[in-house]
Amino acid sequence: SRSLNLAVIPGDGIGTEVVAEGLKVLDAVLAGTDVKVGTTTYDLGAKRWHATGETLPDSVLEELRGHDAILLGAVGDPNVPSGVLERGLLLKLRFELDHYVNLRPSRVFPGVETPLANPGEVDFVVVREGTEGPYVGNGGALRVGTPHEIANEVSVNTAFGVERVVRDAFGRAQARPRKKLTYVHKHNVLVHAGHLWRRTVERVGQEYPEVAVDYLHVDAATIFFVTDPGRFDVIVTDNLFGDILTDLAAAITGGIGLAASGNVNPDRTAPSMFEPVHGSAPDIAGQGIADPTATVLSVGLLLEHVGLSEQAARIVDAVAADLGERGTAKRRTAEVGDALATRVTA
Amino acid sequence: SRSLNLAVIPGDGIGTEVVAEGLKVLDAVLAGTDVKVGTTTYDLGAKRWHATGETLPDSVLEELRGHDAILLGAVGDPNVPSGVLERGLLLKLRFELDHYVNLRPSRVFPGVETPLANPGEVDFVVVREGTEGPYVGNGGALRVGTPHEIANEVSVNTAFGVERVVRDAFGRAQARPRKKLTYVHKHNVLVHAGHLWRRTVERVGQEYPEVAVDYLHVDAATIFFVTDPGRFDVIVTDNLFGDILTDLAAAITGGIGLAASGNVNPDRTAPSMFEPVHGSAPDIAGQGIADPTATVLSVGLLLEHVGLSEQAARIVDAVAADLGERGTAKRRTAEVGDALATRVTA
Ligand SMILES: CC(C)[C@H](C(=O)O)[C@@H](O)C(=O)O
Ligand SMILES: CC(C)[C@H](C(=O)O)[C@@H](O)C(=O)O
Repeated sequence: SRSLNLAVIPGDGIGTEVVAEGLKVLDAVLAGTDVKVGTTTYDLGAKRWHATGETLPDSVLEELRGHDAILLGAVGDPNVPSGVLERGLLLKLRFELDHYVNLRPSRVFPGVETPLANPGEVDFVVVREGTEGPYVGNGGALRVGTPHEIANEVSVNTAFGVERVVRDAFGRAQARPRKKLTYVHKHNVLVHAGHLWRRTVERVGQEYPEVAVDYLHVDAATIFFVTDPGRFDVIVTDNLFGDILTDLAAAITGGIGLAASGNVNPDRTAPSMFEPVHGSAPDIAGQGIADPTATVLSVGLLLEHVGLSEQAARIVDAVAADLGERGTAKRRTAEVGDALATRVTA
Repeated sequence: SRSLNLAVIPGDGIGTEVVAEGLKVLDAVLAGTDVKVGTTTYDLGAKRWHATGETLPDSVLEELRGHDAILLGAVGDPNVPSGVLERGLLLKLRFELDHYVNLRPSRVFPGVETPLANPGEVDFVVVREGTEGPYVGNGGALRVGTPHEIANEVSVNTAFGVERVVRDAFGRAQARPRKKLTYVHKHNVLVHAGHLWRRTVERVGQEYPEVAVDYLHVDAATIFFVTDPGRFDVIVTDNLFGDILTDLAAAITGGIGLAASGNVNPDRTAPSMFEPVHGSAPDIAGQGIADPTATVLSVGLLLEHVGLSEQAARIVDAVAADLGERGTAKRRTAEVGDALATRVTA
């Protein structure tokens, strides 16, 4: 028998509600296998910050490192100043645990309504860089609050950092039937970072002659997301462009209620973290009506990452089947979780 | 009688084709008025760069300054390295002529097909900052081409620069029936620049008590662009976010064939520049099939800027009527120009 030690960070708002369903489905899909799941729950997020002023104590970070993977719900509430939990917890985890591949699959599941008139077949994955770019926190401000204030944000990009994520993306493209990689940047304006990305894609691409590569400026990419999303297979892009494009991707494929993500450390020097793309949604929290599907799909990404591919596939199939039959009736969080748990066992 | 001295930069590819129609409609709408149009054509763009290596000679820049406004088609061809004309010509013009308001209206005209299933009524304008942010060119690279390369891009934001564009946006919101202003940033991650934007919006907003203000992270904004674009009235945002959002806005409102823009210097210390959002489209250049509507609408923005509001309105009305009756038949560039010229005279 093998063990799977998970750190669970339910967080705030609907975070706790959707994580409960994610764990329910995880138990169901592993029932009858020899995998023993152990979970340790960490209370991090807005509640803890309000109570203690802590976002991510060093001791907790060290404990998290001891796990096989992390499942996170969502953190935040309107009374935490903007940036505190993002920089102090979410991004800190990504940077400290070297989550350089931020993986965000996008699929229009059959039966799902999308805002597009004709989405066509959509099934792509965004490989968003997770540890560089404008997210590094290398900015600063001078003369704050005066008419002479200057606020700078520095996007830092390294050969090391760009190459490893580009290489990961080529590997994923190579493994998919269409073998297509689109890299997205803005190299006509951000010439230094953009040309580093471009040269890196060209160089690494020589090792993947079967992968067809194309390039889009980030602005043009948004056009194709709404006019021809079926053209994408694997997309690789920088941290900020990836942030923007994956919310758009979620919107065109049925909403952030369905969008899963993995903050992956492919070198396995630290645990990877899986979380829905959505936030803590204080407006609907506590009512039991949040859609847990994104969290369940994130559990699927987690299983794939720890080598349980068959179980991961069962989760995706269960979601596909559930969405295909869901109809327009609103179901409660637990009902969706129950339905998915039943399907993965069946 | 009054004179209107225009500098015209047709540029490359379809740029020359659409500018011809823009000028045709301009002549038509001013026929019978006492406005005398004078135009000076400047050959700038890819052709000139190939021939001479020049992008924007100082002497030309000085001549441009002597005009009332500039009309630009589009520049570039695939043989010019990425960044050369963007940084050396387009952005140089925006920065040198202090085009701090990059104005991009978005409307779903009746009869126009959009990729959205239910766009609803869409009529908003993006006020994109034009002289700061990640566009300033304050980046650099170290150890280029080695495994130790570092490429930085610096987004520079000043109280002066943010306040003037925010103030302009409030003024526009105040003048519109819905009086709504949405500012878009990513202040939970880009905390220095983001908080400068936030404080500025809050402070300037006190002078505009009738304007309702809301905030969206740029990623969330893309979601609303496809799920509920009707919620927007005036959007104010940074240079890069504005670049991304306005291409998306063009896509959801019928394509970049219809998207007009003004690079405006509201203080009138230098001429403003009007141009379609689209590029030189080498793939369809020379065939006479490019849609000149975006350029014609840009001429409308130009007329508005120089105080010829009645004529500006006639252009918008003509485009609305033309699009309403256009049907699905493909028309040639000149046919569209002729049709619009007829309508503005009628
Ligand atoms: C909450 C925020 C820091 C985060 C990001 O910008 O990466 C979120 O938008 C996401 O996409 O996971
Ligand atoms: C060509 C490029 C420099 C430009 C920009 O990024 O501003 C274009 O995309 C635009 O939106 O006008």
